[in-house]
Amino acid sequence: MSMPKTDMPAARFSYDGLDRVIHEKARLGLLTSLMAHPKGLSFADLKQLCGLTDGNLSRHIQVLQDAGLIDVTKGYEGNRPHTSCRLTKAGRRRFLDYLTVLEQLVRDAAEAAHGDDADKARLGLRPA
Amino acid sequence: MSMPKTDMPAARFSYDGLDRVIHEKARLGLLTSLMAHPKGLSFADLKQLCGLTDGNLSRHIQVLQDAGLIDVTKGYEGNRPHTSCRLTKAGRRRFLDYLTVLEQLVRDAAEAAHGDDADKARLGLRPA
Repeated sequence: MSMPKTDMPAARFSYDGLDRVIHEKARLGLLTSLMAHPKGLSFADLKQLCGLTDGNLSRHIQVLQDAGLIDVTKGYEGNRPHTSCRLTKAGRRRFLDYLTVLEQLVRDAAEAAHGDDADKARLGLRPA
Repeated sequence: MSMPKTDMPAARFSYDGLDRVIHEKARLGLLTSLMAHPKGLSFADLKQLCGLTDGNLSRHIQVLQDAGLIDVTKGYEGNRPHTSCRLTKAGRRRFLDYLTVLEQLVRDAAEAAHGDDADKARLGLRPA
């Protein structure tokens, strides 16, 4: 079926603001963890909070660091090497921008599910 | 810095429910469009709504169809080939499950930004 063109604003559902660096599932967990801990988190803490392997965590930390979203500090705690990560100011701002788009997407999808009030309630929206 | 272990439930921020088939940015747009149009949308309509090229749209439609999230009907409208897509019942359910996790993520991140009431207001949460 075809839609009347008046109902079709260009790319209404393109969600251009969903920054691909941030949108990756593991990186979303990392950024949310770091948002919750503004003083920073150790490699070990991030690994546990996000349920990642050493290899995956290293790879995603590198991507976030290269993009300027996080700062990584390598040092020692006693005799043991200790890596600490924290969100940069720009990282925090970009993550918040991203979250605004994500929230819009959840709202769009919940509104789209209008035929079924149970689905709306499930997504925290009040049935009309 | 290290966190007290009592504050560290295992993989609190792993977001395992973020189904990778659904989580891809273009596919999120496609699923939201189809949720808004339960009778289905043509290839041309989806292309316009999601701002995708023919190649990208075909590729993502194939992934969603292989995963059982959408049905694709190929036919003719007059003399011209016409492809129509609609969300399957299972696809609708899986997308709603995904959205529940996504909503939790937005809520977690908004709560994590607790130091700054302006950020909370921006994400639609009332400052404490």
